[in-house]
Amino acid sequence: MNKFELIATDSDTKARAGVLQTDHGEIETPIFMPVGTQGTVKAIEQRELTEIGAQVILGNTYHLYLRPGEEVLGQFGGLHKFMNWDKPILTDSGGYQVFSLKELRKITENGVLFSSHLDGSKHTFTPERVIEIQRCIGSDIIMPLDECAPHPCTYEYAKNSMELTLRWAMRNKEAFDTSLPRYGHEQILFAIGQGSVYKDLRTECLARIVEMDFDGYAIGGLAVGEEAEIMYDIVNHSTEIMPKNKPRYLMGVGTPENIVTAIGLGVDMFDCVMPTRNARNGTLFTTKGKINIRNAKYKFNNELIDSEVNSYASQNFSLGYLRHLFMAKEILGLQLATQHNLAFYLWLVKTAREKILLGQYRQWARNFIDNYTAKGF
Amino acid sequence: MNKFELIATDSDTKARAGVLQTDHGEIETPIFMPVGTQGTVKAIEQRELTEIGAQVILGNTYHLYLRPGEEVLGQFGGLHKFMNWDKPILTDSGGYQVFSLKELRKITENGVLFSSHLDGSKHTFTPERVIEIQRCIGSDIIMPLDECAPHPCTYEYAKNSMELTLRWAMRNKEAFDTSLPRYGHEQILFAIGQGSVYKDLRTECLARIVEMDFDGYAIGGLAVGEEAEIMYDIVNHSTEIMPKNKPRYLMGVGTPENIVTAIGLGVDMFDCVMPTRNARNGTLFTTKGKINIRNAKYKFNNELIDSEVNSYASQNFSLGYLRHLFMAKEILGLQLATQHNLAFYLWLVKTAREKILLGQYRQWARNFIDNYTAKGF
Repeated sequence: MNKFELIATDSDTKARAGVLQTDHGEIETPIFMPVGTQGTVKAIEQRELTEIGAQVILGNTYHLYLRPGEEVLGQFGGLHKFMNWDKPILTDSGGYQVFSLKELRKITENGVLFSSHLDGSKHTFTPERVIEIQRCIGSDIIMPLDECAPHPCTYEYAKNSMELTLRWAMRNKEAFDTSLPRYGHEQILFAIGQGSVYKDLRTECLARIVEMDFDGYAIGGLAVGEEAEIMYDIVNHSTEIMPKNKPRYLMGVGTPENIVTAIGLGVDMFDCVMPTRNARNGTLFTTKGKINIRNAKYKFNNELIDSEVNSYASQNFSLGYLRHLFMAKEILGLQLATQHNLAFYLWLVKTAREKILLGQYRQWARNFIDNYTAKGF
Repeated sequence: MNKFELIATDSDTKARAGVLQTDHGEIETPIFMPVGTQGTVKAIEQRELTEIGAQVILGNTYHLYLRPGEEVLGQFGGLHKFMNWDKPILTDSGGYQVFSLKELRKITENGVLFSSHLDGSKHTFTPERVIEIQRCIGSDIIMPLDECAPHPCTYEYAKNSMELTLRWAMRNKEAFDTSLPRYGHEQILFAIGQGSVYKDLRTECLARIVEMDFDGYAIGGLAVGEEAEIMYDIVNHSTEIMPKNKPRYLMGVGTPENIVTAIGLGVDMFDCVMPTRNARNGTLFTTKGKINIRNAKYKFNNELIDSEVNSYASQNFSLGYLRHLFMAKEILGLQLATQHNLAFYLWLVKTAREKILLGQYRQWARNFIDNYTAKGF
């Protein structure tokens, strides 16, 4: 049964509003998924994620596999119970992290051999194994093992890599179809389109995974160093091929401008470490632009962090106080900045959805991007 | 007007239940004050302090003076508004921190000259200056500049130091009486009894400050390395001399056992970095004893952190999950451990108060200490 319902499509752009059903609740798209690498979204409590409107979080299979590991996760009844999060979870396959290890991994037809960044121990991820691990994690949305080609890469490399990803997609699906959820809630499997910056490869890859029939489709291998215009071009090309009745997920993207643009190109789901990682570096995303809270100009600033964003942090503390917390290296600074940045990202996708439903997406998106990039720093 | 009302005194021990009125609300004693050194209690949000029952927090004049500094605090209308905390604040005088600098400070009759630990810049704290700074901070309860003698120290040193503290107490009071609050709420001034481990010096110091008439009296210079039995002996001696109708504050103490014992000796107020600092090291104070959450035995432990302690952290996450957060060096671990430990300390003093009001303090305290020290680790 198809879990995704398309509610509205914008007439001026390709923007869509939809709902994805899971046993842990509905996900209203377009949506941003906060990244919870190791069973926690860094520096924010689970109840605070709910408070700021998070509907789904992302977990990293590679990290969870290494720590706390399958034995612990199995014993606790999966990641939801372990971390006390009762809304949906999407897990990546671990492939991206493993490929990031560079010197510590080796790709074969069977899968990828890698050394743990924690203790150097050797492990192998295969399409079958990453399904098994994600069954143990109990994520609502499972991602398949794929190869994320580096940028830039030759056509030859991209084609071979894409072919491998397709063979693995078949094995991922077979492993998924012949295994069962462990904790009584349903899990669904997405597929990932690759092909680097080569449109014919993107077309072929997507056409072939769509033929295999997955519950959702992701665009992988972008936001790896290419120009934003190239990324948008590939996204626009990809969403032409992706089926309308399935959710579309642009992996690892991105800035507020990237997200607003990609929504207009027909993307439904996003994840990125940017709001959380940048928060910990003192970079705030606000409705008034991107700011560095350490800047001396905020020393005496008694304005709220962001009165338009609905979070405890945004609405109860001044820029001057937050600056003080960062200057004094206080943990509360990381907490408040994280809470605000995630609330801003969730405000962004929620507002985008409202504008799509009102038929005002194009104008709103244009104004947002013009204003956002003109302000700040 | 006396701000302190004594509600009940235990018949078997010297334990008391009282209420201290401030313009930012009532403080029900006995009370523990979480330490908020730099305008934040480390790793916990202000609303969470309220949630776990914090009635008053402590700020450090030395740290706040250096950063964010008087200019910022004055501009924001004081520390309450700066940090968005609308309950009472007690500030120390900065003396203790300055004396801890050792090589960086010099004591004279006038005050203490010190070098900032941040940038080496030179500063002087005098009794008059620390009142002025605390007027700028806007704390509800002001502590005077005193000399905290090291342990051990000779009778001669302790006597001279005590005499200096008394001369400074007079100047503190004069500066307080001839200055006004800056933000429209009342501030009160406590005095500090010194005298090291020498009872006759303690007697003399307390008698003379009581004669000067302050709004509350503190026992300083303890928990600086002496045996617990010596500390209890000095506390017991001091509370015999301290007036019944004023709050009694034992500075910088201590462990749960220390607090339960000192309440039985007639102390009303406590502060200590132990619950917050130890939380960040993975040491939890629980109703089942003190534990090190990193211990491998908690790896698969699915029990709540502490079902008897009323905090989000204590009641919603397992020991196994908290251990994982510490092993993975996740900030959420610091947040949950801090929240739990402070909630435990506040549970402890709240329960102590209830037992005093029920006339059951002695039995409860004895059981608590027996159980607490027998369990854990």
